[in-house]
Amino acid sequence: MSLPENIQITSDIAGVIKDYFAHNNFSSVMVLVDENTKRHCFPLVEKAMPDHELIEIKSGEEYKNLDTCSQIWSELTRFACDRKAILVNLGGGVIGDMGGFCAATYKRGIRFINIPTTLLAQVDASTGGKLGIDFQGFKNHIGVFQEPHRVFIDPVFLHTLSEREMRSGFAEIIKHCLIADDRMFEKIYGKEISELRMDKLIQHSVEIKNQVVTEDPFEKGLRKILNFGHTVGHAVETFFLSHGEDKMLHGEAIAIGMIAEAYLSHKLANLKHVELEKICRYLLAVYGYRSIPDEAIPAISDLTLHDKKNEKKSINCSLLIKTGQCGFNYKVKKADIQESLRYYNQMVNSSDKVMN
Amino acid sequence: MSLPENIQITSDIAGVIKDYFAHNNFSSVMVLVDENTKRHCFPLVEKAMPDHELIEIKSGEEYKNLDTCSQIWSELTRFACDRKAILVNLGGGVIGDMGGFCAATYKRGIRFINIPTTLLAQVDASTGGKLGIDFQGFKNHIGVFQEPHRVFIDPVFLHTLSEREMRSGFAEIIKHCLIADDRMFEKIYGKEISELRMDKLIQHSVEIKNQVVTEDPFEKGLRKILNFGHTVGHAVETFFLSHGEDKMLHGEAIAIGMIAEAYLSHKLANLKHVELEKICRYLLAVYGYRSIPDEAIPAISDLTLHDKKNEKKSINCSLLIKTGQCGFNYKVKKADIQESLRYYNQMVNSSDKVMN
Repeated sequence: MSLPENIQITSDIAGVIKDYFAHNNFSSVMVLVDENTKRHCFPLVEKAMPDHELIEIKSGEEYKNLDTCSQIWSELTRFACDRKAILVNLGGGVIGDMGGFCAATYKRGIRFINIPTTLLAQVDASTGGKLGIDFQGFKNHIGVFQEPHRVFIDPVFLHTLSEREMRSGFAEIIKHCLIADDRMFEKIYGKEISELRMDKLIQHSVEIKNQVVTEDPFEKGLRKILNFGHTVGHAVETFFLSHGEDKMLHGEAIAIGMIAEAYLSHKLANLKHVELEKICRYLLAVYGYRSIPDEAIPAISDLTLHDKKNEKKSINCSLLIKTGQCGFNYKVKKADIQESLRYYNQMVNSSDKVMN
Repeated sequence: MSLPENIQITSDIAGVIKDYFAHNNFSSVMVLVDENTKRHCFPLVEKAMPDHELIEIKSGEEYKNLDTCSQIWSELTRFACDRKAILVNLGGGVIGDMGGFCAATYKRGIRFINIPTTLLAQVDASTGGKLGIDFQGFKNHIGVFQEPHRVFIDPVFLHTLSEREMRSGFAEIIKHCLIADDRMFEKIYGKEISELRMDKLIQHSVEIKNQVVTEDPFEKGLRKILNFGHTVGHAVETFFLSHGEDKMLHGEAIAIGMIAEAYLSHKLANLKHVELEKICRYLLAVYGYRSIPDEAIPAISDLTLHDKKNEKKSINCSLLIKTGQCGFNYKVKKADIQESLRYYNQMVNSSDKVMN
């Protein structure tokens, strides 16, 4: 396995940026930040940059929409950016996805580089060229496929994250182990995040994702395995976006989705019961125990119908055949989804027993 | 020269559509129309279509914007279109450009076919994969490159056009002759549109454009010759969008642009004076004589600075080396643009003399 050519993992972000701009010419350099990355991340790279202008947007998934795109396009226009301009996206998944989309559509496409500053963006959003924004409550509903000119990943930015944000990103690392590398799953199983070498795990995740994406860039088939946990997980995330006081982070929702879909893997694919139990045990230990209100279960199963991977109005899932191997295009019924969510709740309620 | 593989010129549009859907499967078929194409063009294809849903937008360049995109994306969402849905764009350049952009970005891209119904869209917008919308007064400012799955061109739709709309599309036919085929220019020179065989001229134009675009799909170099007449023409079009009672059609603005840029071709490239005169004579004969108010000239020359082909804030023009041959990347000054517009006015004012 190897890294994609456009991705570099480094512990010297300033040096890498300097080197990049010494070897590439642009008519203007624009840097996209939000109020958090402006404060915590921008100071680490500012001096390494050539002359540039800042575009500041509001942080948060709720601003990943057309209005914010209009703001970004307006700023690019106001600074008279031409097609040889570059946009540097400094931030988490929202900044990378939305900044990339704006760059890929401004004057039919200018170059952009992503400097992901969250663990989630480093292990997931950095690879695969998926760009986009939310639309009318649907996640990443409008977008394009386009690779960043470069992605620079430096774990130094992880020091700016809360423990909860670290856990959120870690869900994608677990996912990559579950779908493609049972030996790595054994290595992380039972460990706390703080005990693990994050740079190695980031590289491992990016390499796995790269291998899958290279074989199937436009998600005709194999790439769908990256959606393990996401059919239910996205629906859970969408549901809690508009219900409940406490927002759920992406990885937290995906952890719930992975438990539900591990259950479906046991029911509909070949995942053994003992594997199902082990996966659940670990995920519950890391992600705690937020149960889903019974009355929310029908609404969440309805939301799975809107997943982009679906065809002809049926629900399409990627399910584990065993730990470390994933299949795709399993047809799942709404009733199955509801059953899997009830299984999740049951696990949460009996989690004391499960943990022993 | 040959047609692109995805383009078919036919005199049996219904048969071609039937055949296409007999050989391609889609989960849903959506048809984009405006009030004009719904009334005049849709009846010619409706019966040939499989089960489908209509999306109707308002006609006109002033609706080629993000709000209308939102409407189209909403409708695709409302009908639960998945990634195996197709959008059929039935209309002129606005429908093709904007419908294509919406399809290319809905769930990161669904297939679309274009059925151009104006002469302008048939000879120009049908080829080259440029999709997009206007933004804050700038034409095609937001967009992507993406080829339609198919383009079906049938001259039968031209019967629905006014004489003025026919003339507008004809400007691009003249342009294709001027940049790449002096012998074809000789054949059309001095003729009325009604005397010409339009199906042959459409094919000729599409073939020329295809040859250029195939060599340079992303407009790194050669493709820029297709912009002959468009640096000044776009600026004129943009200016009259917000000034003056009578809207100027695209081709009418491009005809003015071609006269201005033929002048610049004589001044800055190698175009001979006798060729310049002949080109002007023909364009003035076809496009009449609308002079540009003196006070508008600085504003129009300012607008040329915003052309997408520019780099580093200078004005980049494609100019004729001789009739039938075009070069690109000529740096032009604002003062030159203003001089060329005054030349155009002078030609208009002395046009009686020029015609004899």
